Formats: sequence, structure tokens, C-alpha cells
Amino acid sequence: MPLLDPDRLFPAEPRARGLARALHAEVASLPLVCPHGHVDPQWFAADEPFADPVALFLLPDHYLLRMLVSQGVGLDALGVPRRGAAPGQGAGAGPEPRAVWRLLAAHWHLFLATPSRLWLEHVFETLFGIEAPLSPTTADEQFDRIAAAIATPAFRPRALYERFGIEVLATTDAALDGLAAHRAIAASGWGGRVIPTYRPDAVTDPEAPGFAAALDRLGALTGEDTGRWAGYLAAHRARRAHFRAHGATATDHGAPSAMTLDLPAAEAAALFDRIRRGAAGPGEAAAFRAQMLTEFARMSCEDGMVMQLHPGSLRNHSAAVFAGWGPDRGFDIPVAAEYTVALKPLLDAVGHHPRLTLIVFTLDEASLSRELAPLAGAYPCLRLGPAWWFHDSPAGMRRFRELTTETAGFFNTVGFNDDTRALPSIPARHDMARRVDCAFLAELVVAGRLPEAEAPRLARALAVDLARAAYRL
Amino acid sequence: MPLLDPDRLFPAEPRARGLARALHAEVASLPLVCPHGHVDPQWFAADEPFADPVALFLLPDHYLLRMLVSQGVGLDALGVPRRGAAPGQGAGAGPEPRAVWRLLAAHWHLFLATPSRLWLEHVFETLFGIEAPLSPTTADEQFDRIAAAIATPAFRPRALYERFGIEVLATTDAALDGLAAHRAIAASGWGGRVIPTYRPDAVTDPEAPGFAAALDRLGALTGEDTGRWAGYLAAHRARRAHFRAHGATATDHGAPSAMTLDLPAAEAAALFDRIRRGAAGPGEAAAFRAQMLTEFARMSCEDGMVMQLHPGSLRNHSAAVFAGWGPDRGFDIPVAAEYTVALKPLLDAVGHHPRLTLIVFTLDEASLSRELAPLAGAYPCLRLGPAWWFHDSPAGMRRFRELTTETAGFFNTVGFNDDTRALPSIPARHDMARRVDCAFLAELVVAGRLPEAEAPRLARALAVDLARAAYRL
Amino acid sequence: MPLLDPDRLFPAEPRARGLARALHAEVASLPLVCPHGHVDPQWFAADEPFADPVALFLLPDHYLLRMLVSQGVGLDALGVPRRGAAPGQGAGAGPEPRAVWRLLAAHWHLFLATPSRLWLEHVFETLFGIEAPLSPTTADEQFDRIAAAIATPAFRPRALYERFGIEVLATTDAALDGLAAHRAIAASGWGGRVIPTYRPDAVTDPEAPGFAAALDRLGALTGEDTGRWAGYLAAHRARRAHFRAHGATATDHGAPSAMTLDLPAAEAAALFDRIRRGAAGPGEAAAFRAQMLTEFARMSCEDGMVMQLHPGSLRNHSAAVFAGWGPDRGFDIPVAAEYTVALKPLLDAVGHHPRLTLIVFTLDEASLSRELAPLAGAYPCLRLGPAWWFHDSPAGMRRFRELTTETAGFFNTVGFNDDTRALPSIPARHDMARRVDCAFLAELVVAGRLPEAEAPRLARALAVDLARAAYRL
Repeated sequence: MPLLDPDRLFPAEPRARGLARALHAEVASLPLVCPHGHVDPQWFAADEPFADPVALFLLPDHYLLRMLVSQGVGLDALGVPRRGAAPGQGAGAGPEPRAVWRLLAAHWHLFLATPSRLWLEHVFETLFGIEAPLSPTTADEQFDRIAAAIATPAFRPRALYERFGIEVLATTDAALDGLAAHRAIAASGWGGRVIPTYRPDAVTDPEAPGFAAALDRLGALTGEDTGRWAGYLAAHRARRAHFRAHGATATDHGAPSAMTLDLPAAEAAALFDRIRRGAAGPGEAAAFRAQMLTEFARMSCEDGMVMQLHPGSLRNHSAAVFAGWGPDRGFDIPVAAEYTVALKPLLDAVGHHPRLTLIVFTLDEASLSRELAPLAGAYPCLRLGPAWWFHDSPAGMRRFRELTTETAGFFNTVGFNDDTRALPSIPARHDMARRVDCAFLAELVVAGRLPEAEAPRLARALAVDLARAAYRL
Repeated sequence: MPLLDPDRLFPAEPRARGLARALHAEVASLPLVCPHGHVDPQWFAADEPFADPVALFLLPDHYLLRMLVSQGVGLDALGVPRRGAAPGQGAGAGPEPRAVWRLLAAHWHLFLATPSRLWLEHVFETLFGIEAPLSPTTADEQFDRIAAAIATPAFRPRALYERFGIEVLATTDAALDGLAAHRAIAASGWGGRVIPTYRPDAVTDPEAPGFAAALDRLGALTGEDTGRWAGYLAAHRARRAHFRAHGATATDHGAPSAMTLDLPAAEAAALFDRIRRGAAGPGEAAAFRAQMLTEFARMSCEDGMVMQLHPGSLRNHSAAVFAGWGPDRGFDIPVAAEYTVALKPLLDAVGHHPRLTLIVFTLDEASLSRELAPLAGAYPCLRLGPAWWFHDSPAGMRRFRELTTETAGFFNTVGFNDDTRALPSIPARHDMARRVDCAFLAELVVAGRLPEAEAPRLARALAVDLARAAYRL
Repeated sequence: MPLLDPDRLFPAEPRARGLARALHAEVASLPLVCPHGHVDPQWFAADEPFADPVALFLLPDHYLLRMLVSQGVGLDALGVPRRGAAPGQGAGAGPEPRAVWRLLAAHWHLFLATPSRLWLEHVFETLFGIEAPLSPTTADEQFDRIAAAIATPAFRPRALYERFGIEVLATTDAALDGLAAHRAIAASGWGGRVIPTYRPDAVTDPEAPGFAAALDRLGALTGEDTGRWAGYLAAHRARRAHFRAHGATATDHGAPSAMTLDLPAAEAAALFDRIRRGAAGPGEAAAFRAQMLTEFARMSCEDGMVMQLHPGSLRNHSAAVFAGWGPDRGFDIPVAAEYTVALKPLLDAVGHHPRLTLIVFTLDEASLSRELAPLAGAYPCLRLGPAWWFHDSPAGMRRFRELTTETAGFFNTVGFNDDTRALPSIPARHDMARRVDCAFLAELVVAGRLPEAEAPRLARALAVDLARAAYRL
């Protein structure tokens, strides 16, 4: 018996189910447009086989790690390297991958009805032909089967990219990244389109570790004087041009909040000076981040790069986990978000500029119907990023549509982001989004809220067209 | 093929659909009770034909304007008059109505699955016999058909009022309004019941433009000394009496937040003095608005006027739109709302008064189950206003019922408000609300949560009885 | 015709309904595990008959009182004793129970589609064989029937406990409570398991009335010097041991917010000294409550008691009701809640301790998907308490699952709490929860999100296993 229900995520009622099935059939094999994610571009540059099932599926997946930790499984037992240690080293010799895989199998019930399990079972069945649920009795056989498969050429990164029908894959890259991997991909003659995204958080957040040194490197890299405001801004412009030259169409900005500011130029310069001298007062780091969002929006008006804003996560919530194992271990926790007041300075500065596209994400679903749909349904620059992170799930995506469509429509949204570093799961993620959207459209039709003739066009828009257009791909 | 599905907004499952259909059949042709809206009373006083389809449907509808602007259509291209310009003048000659109509038609897909499209298609089909969707190919024909129809006597305001089966229509009128239109209607001998609502925001908000002059006019109008606290309150009492004499049963209060205060009389008087002298400190404008809400609640205990509170919108969010085209262009954006702490002073003052009815609205759905349903399910004065503004939509109304019924029941809600200045769409709006409520009741019955025998009575209550009772109509 | 639909709360769609029905059949008669509630243990110690239908059903039920008050029925008319008066005395002679019952009957429509009505009709039908809805025409007959039944031995507290299949019933008891009732139950030789829960709010909240005197009594009771920080903490340890000796496995903590602190020991001692001397500054009462939550978490690491946190209610919102009739009359109103920042100090102190279980509840549903599911899906100590208070309802429980399952799974939740002082309604409440959970599981199966073979195990886990495990019963 297969792991996957062919009608999964479709409505129960027969007419709606039939409509959803038909809509899905039209979009299921469309190319995968991946405008935002965290796949390592070096994988495509080197095109080497993945190490083992644990290194491929478990260790990079903070969704899996966090759930196991929440039920008492330790990160050491999972083989997560201690901070500063190379993988496999850690505190003494790490566990064998097979032992970790058995641990995952023994806790597989924790993931019932979570997107993680749906994604992984999609991968297990479609990539490896597995039809039995992972369990202590199947763990070894499935480990072996996956290990054998990923050692073959068909499972190398470029082969997977092609097999999946990926049209374009954007990575996320630090402002100081030399983009060597992207250059190597281009130089290789391989036809895949893997493009960088400009993510300057480490050189815009005065509270980031090593901020001053990072600004020095930014200056060295660009030849600009990053000791002064004008030079600092010029350095960003130079890096953005460098990214664009390597195919980038977008920038991405993480921040504790969506706060923006539009200070007079002299005040902004003075603020920068205080921060650069380490003389900033309380709240000035936040003010600087806020000002920089508006500066980046202005640069986007100049150079046409699409701007993404991902606010609202309190990073590294557990001091113990951060001290022991570093960031990205599943301990980033959302906080309440505010957009209406926060975005006003930026929107007053450039909110009606015809060249600006600002895609905003949220982790606080209360903000969707209250603030984000009303804002995106009014400002020409604004678009709503899809259901993000914890909400990248069947119910989360459904709530996103229910809470935004009536106010912002479909065309102020931007399709799907897989937002993942798990290359093998990319088709599973897109398929989940396409199914949820087709189900939503089908139910609208059955409820007389959408003409049936319009549904196929919308299904294609949500699957590929909106992403291509919004990200200028 | 008609635009409207006869089973629109009903549940998909057959038994629930059948129940919803039967319930709707019982309420579909009940009179329309319209206790809160923004139709211009002068239309009924003059009873002249509407100018053209664009002036009738598009220009007064901020839902339509905002969505078009959000996708890059400019307000000038839509013929929205520039601030200070008379309609049709603007920055040079405005566009022809037909050209604007074509623009709407070319962007009609933006409104798929929005209430705007459902309302307008209801109007197009039921008033004008249109059965093809608006599109570039049908735009001209439909423009002509509508233009021809509205030139006929059957489409004048009084005729529409009668054809729609409106039982009473409340308008919203500034405190300083002379109510000439209402007097003219009464003097005309026409039988329609068009009543004013006392909306004193401009003379209670010290931050409103022209506040001091407005208070002077309030004094002149009433013969009270609005330079002093006692006279200012007396002036409000006089204006309320004036409104009641013209049929008003309710007042309405917009405010940035639901904050109330109940200062000792001497402190309130001193606060008024500082505000009147322009000597108020930071936060005192908010304090004054908060105090006035409690004063108005006290006046309602005296005179029996039903009090409505509409908080939580940040008005004129876009400085550019406000500077260019003025208010009410779709750029009012909600912010997070708080009621539990905010309303306590007012409720401690008069919350158990047997004569007070305070109807509270929200734009922040998170407050519904958290605060408003618990408050309305306890205080005898409180009632929940229906899903408001961006939530006046199928999914918004559904969430309203789901988030409030279990805690506040049905009888602490007040039925439907169409809240519109779009006279022709009033039946469409009531029909949407009636369908959503009938669907909700039908699903409760199917889930064994409501006895089937009780559903028809509830459907009538939600359609007309609760509104009549709550607004004392 | 019976009051109860045998398929109540199940999905409408036939396949899902069939699955839900089958799942429910497997769990419907499992024992009732009641780890959190407010039944008076003295009832089981004395095992006397209940007085009359009003004393049994109406007077202790703040859900019923508040709804009646919200529609203008006064607490005096309902026979709620005035503050300081013994029941039945009040302001003059109270109304006859039969008259109050008629009042309830006349307002029974207010409760349509509320959980109160579903619970009570379940009781009426299953305990008393009533099949007609309560109404003015049936009120007297039903009053007599209930009154006659509860006078019989089969309706005494111990008989009900046994008939209901209760496995364990935890009461909630103040820190200073001598637990005489629990001792009497144990001494009686009766086999029921009625255990206390340590609820120390009155001796941890400096703003509680009589706080200083309560601390003196705490010292006297334990022989510890509660004038000093070390002695105060030792006194808590002693009382916790006393509660454990009487069967307690858990503590419970109410607080205005979830704020925690982890001050250095010397600072905590100094804070305690200031509070004990009445010399605390603004905000220090809150700081003390916050510190005590972390202290209690540390004690739980030592003694293994499960910790429950119930924040977010503004108690006694109506000054008039509190002055007239005291607390617990339905006028406790939720406020917005924050957990991510608030819990960090406690979690940094002991969040990874293997012995700690901290069960967190919320009244602010916006916090479920935003904060609580992400936190509980990461920290090993954290578990999510079930839908609480106003959300202990079919739609509330459904939202709880929809908003938490995808991020925290099922195994970071703890099953159901009936949380009631209404002994006769306990089976009704568990049955509602079991039905809603079975419906949720059935819909997941139909949507291909959960393997059908896993559903029965999950249904049992949600009905009994998770509660047993989380509360260490």
C-alpha cells in the first residue's frame, strides 16, 4: 500500500474533490519556480553524491530536530555537531548514521499529521519507491535502500534539479559572499539556473556578532569607505550590482520587527557614525535596521531588485542550545508582529514607486487579515509572501488564503516559496502548495464564489505565473 | 449562463446545503433593516438619476479603488478628483467615464473571490439583467446598458429604496450637520424612512483638522458656551435631541482605539480647558477622546440613543494619497485592538445601566474570541457589531460567527449592517449576510449542535429581528 | 425525540462521519481521566445529596450566570448570594429555586449553539432521561424530576464518580488548605481517587488581598520563617511535600501574564524582603510573581510535580459585580498574551531539565500558532494544555488542533481537562472533547494527512493516554 493518498489534501465533498483533482492535474507537472530558498549552491558546483540518509534528511532539517528534542531526544544523540566542531566530531565520536536513523524511526509517530512527515513520505515513495511507513522494523532496510540510491549518479544534485523540473532556484547568500559557487556553476556549462539572493543582515544589524569587522570587509571587497554613511551605502550598491551580475533578481532581509524609518539624510549619517564608533544609544541599533530597510527599498527603486522582508522571529531562543550547537537548530520562535505603523515610513518614502516590489512575510497569522491583506490590497509596491515557516503546511497555507483573498485578492500574492535547504523535498513542497491551492479554488467554485471557468487560470497563476512575475524571473 | 449561482455561499455537503437553502428561502424576502450606513440622504431628498456607471459604482467605492491602485492603476486614470477639485475637474480634464469603465473591466480578474465582485455581479444581474462577466469585450455594452437603465425613473433613489424592500435606512451625519436633507425627505411626503445617526468625531477629536472652529460652530448652533466643559456637554445633548427629533436612534463613534476614561468631573473639565486653550500635553488628545466615550455612554443612559463604537483604523495611511486625493480612498489600515482594559472605565461607570446599549465593532479578529465575545457575553449593555469593513465578506462573517457564538451566543449580536454608500448594492450585501448565516445555522444543525426546529427563528433573528431590537427601530 | 444527536460533532461528509463514529466507539467508554478541575473534595468526603437543581446546575456555573446577566437578568434574581452573605440569605430572602429554574427556562434560547447547552442537555438526557428541551412549559416538570432524582443515593457524589467511570479526579487547592477533605476521603475506605493540586497563587501574589497574613499562616503551618526568602521557599517545599503525601502530582499557577524572571539569588532575596516589608516599588509585584514561576519550575525539577500555568485573565473586570457578589461570577475577561519573551528566563533556567513538565494554557488563540506550538514543539519540558475556558467548546477545541498540530504534533499536547466544578457534567465534557478529536482525526484521514491505521491509537492517546502520562497519573 503506498504512503501517499492520490487525493491527499483535496476536499472531502465529491464535487469539490473532483474539481480539485482536475485543477491539480493541470498544474502538477508545471515547472518548479523556486524564488526563495536555502539550498547550498556549492552542491551544484561540485555535484557530488550526498553522504548518507541522516546527513541528507535529518541533520539540515530543523523541523525534524526540534520535534525530536521536544520529546527528549538530545541533539548529541542525533549527531548534531557541537558548536565549533566539524560534523562527525562533536563531543567525542558522534553516533553512527544508522543509529540516528533508527532513532528517527522510533519517533516517527511524533510527526503524524505534520508537514514534515508528508514531505518525507513523498520523497521516500517518489524517489526511493518506499511504500511502508518508517518504523523500527523498516528502518534498516530503508536506510540501506536510500544509502544505495544516493550513491548513484541519478541522485546527484544536478540530476535531481533536472529530474524535478526546476526552472530556476534562488539561493540565499550573505552580502560578503564571493559567489564562487555561482560562478563555478556558470563556468561549468551546466544548464541549470541557480541564482543568488542578496541577504545583507550581517552587515546591517549592529547587534550581529562581528558587525564592525564585517563592515571593514565590506569596504575591502568594494573599495568603498564603509566608515562613512555615503561609502557604506555605495558599498551596498556595489554588492547588489555584483549579485545582479550573477543572476540575482532579489534581496532578502531578516529583522526582529518590520519597523522602518526614513530619517533625513544628515540624521541617518549621524546615526551611522555613532553606530560605527560604538557610541550608539539604546534603541539605535533598531533604528539603524529600520532606516536600512528604507534605504534598501530606495535602492530597489534604482536597480529593480525585488525586496523581501522576513520579520518577527526571536532567534536562538534557547541559550543552552545556542551555546552548545549554534544557530538554526529549531529554537527560533515567533513573536507578535506589527506592520501598519512599522511600514509607514518606508511606504511614505517609496510605496507608490512603480519599480518597487516589496514582498512581506509574517509568522503572526493575526496580522494577515488585520494588516497585511489591507496593506497589500492598497499599495502598488506591496505583495504578500506565502505562508512562511511554521505556516508552510496544509492548514497554514489554507489559513493564508482564507485570511487574505477577500481583501487582497490572488494577484497581490506571489505564489509559493519552498524556502528549504532540503533539495530532495522540493517537489513534495511544491506539490503540497499546489494541492492546497487547488482545493481552495475548488471549494470557492462549489460555493459559488468563483466562476468555474476562471479556476484553471488561477491555479496556474498560483503555481508558477505569480512567482515568475513577482520575482522578475 | 447567469452570473449568480443560486446556491452560492451554501455548504457543499447535500444535507447542510438543503437546510441552508430552506432557511434562506424563509428570510430572502424579508425587509431590509439598515441601521448603519453611509448613503447620502440628499439622494432621497432630490431623487435625481445617478450620473453614469462609473460615478455610481466605482468612484464612491474605496474597495474597488484600492484594489486597482494596488496593481498599479492610478487614481488619476480612474477619474478620482484631486483634492480640492470638483469631480470631473482634477488635474486637467479627467478621463471619460467609459474609459474608466474599460479600465475596471480590464482588471476585473483582480476581484475574483472578493466580496466586491460578488456584490457587483449581484447588482449587474438582478438590476440590469446582465449575465456575462465584465471583460474588455463586454465592457462597452454593459456600460451602455447600465447608463440607459439608470436614466429611467425606476432607478432613482426612492424607487430603488422601495424596490429593495428597505424598511429603514440610517445615514451617518456629522454633529454639525443641519439635517436639511432629512427635513426635506420628511417634508416631501415620501414614505421612506431615512434617519440620521449622530457622529460627533469632528467635534470630539482634538487632533481633527479645524477642531477649534468646529467647537465654535457647535456653540453657535446650540446657543451653548462650548468654551467651557459644561456648555460643551450641553451642546452635545442639544444636538442629540435635534437628531432624535429627526428620527435618529443611534450615535456612532470612530476612534483610533477603544480607550475610555472616567475622570472625576473637575479633572475632565480641566482637561477640556487645556485642550480648548491649545495647551494640552502629549497623550491628552487621546485622553479627551477616551473621556468623551464615557460621556456619550452616560448621555445614552439619559436619552436612550444606541451607541456604536468603531475603533482601530489608522486613517489616511498613505501621505501621498491623502495629500493628492484626500480621505476615504482605500488607505485606512487597521491596527491591533484592545478592548478588555480599554473599555473598563466606561463599563465600570455605566456597564450595568438598563438603558444603555453599546455596540462594539472590531477590525482585529484576534480580539473576537479573546475579548469581545467574553465581554459581550457578560455585560448587559454590550452587543457585538457584525463583521466590519474588510471582514464584511463571506469568510469574515463566517469567522465572526465561529469566534463569537460559543461564548456570546446569537442574542448578543445585532444582525447585519450594510455600512455602505453604494445604494444599489444594499440588497446584495444583505443577501450575502443572510446566506452566510443560514449556512452557519445549517452546519450547526447537521453537526447536532443546534436543534433543527430552532434554526428558522434564528435565521429571522439574524436577518431582521436583532437589528430592529438592538437599534430600537 | 431525544435531545442528543448520536452523530453530534462529527463531520458532515459521509466517509469522514463514518470514520469519526468508529473512532468514537473505541474511546467512548474509556475511563475519565480528570487531571485538572474544581470539584469540591468535601462532596466526596461527606457524600451527601445535592440540594436542588439550581444549586447543582446554575449557581456554581459562571458560564450560565454571565450569559443571563448579559441579557439583563440580575444576579439577585438568580439567587446568587450577595458578598459576605450565606447562600439563600443575600439581600433579603433569595428567590425560590423553582422560580430561578423558570428564569433559566425562559432564557434557554440564549444558550443555543453554546457548549453550556450541549453539556446540560447531555446531563439532562443521560442522567435524568429528559427528552424535551427546557422551556417555560417543561420547566416545572423537569425541575421536579431532577429534584427527585438527586435526592436518591444513586446521585450522591461517590455514586456519580463511580457511574461516570472516573479513574482519577484532581481538585484545585490553596497552598494553605489543610486537605482535610482529602484525608477524610482516604480514611473512609472509599475506592475513588480524588487528589489535590497545589495552587499557591494567594501566597505568591503580593497584590492578592491578605497576602502578608497568608504568608504568616504559611510560616505557622510549616514551621518555616516566611519572613525571609530561604524560609519562604522552604515553606513552599514543605507544602508541596504535604500535597504529594495526599496524592498530588501537579501544581497550578494563575497569573495575569506568563512573565518569568530568573534573578540572581541575592536579588531575588532582596526583592522578597522589599515585598515582605511593604516597600516594593512599581512593577515589583509582577517581578516577584515572575520570579516565583521560575522557582516553582526549579522545585518541580526536584520533586517531580507537574507544573501548570494559566495566564492571561483580567479577574473581576466589573467593579460592581465584584463589590456586590464577589469573584467567579463570569466577569473574568482575557487579555492579549505573550509567551515567547515571557517564558525565556524560566526556559533558560530549566527548560531542558529531564524531570520538568510545564503545561501551558492560553486564552489568546493568536498565541497558539505563533508562539505556543513553536515553543512546545522545541522545548522538552513544555506541553500544551487543552483549549481552555471560553475555548473549551467544539469550535475552540477544533481551532486548538488546527493551530497546533502541524507544528507541535499530538504528543506535545496533554489530552483533555474538564476544568469544572460541575460534577454531573464531567462525562458530557469528556464526550465533547472525544468527539471533536475523533472528528479531527477522521478528517485528517479523509484528507490523506494521516494514515487510517494510526487514527485509533491517536484517539486513545487524546482521550486518556496523554493525560495519564503528562500528569504522571
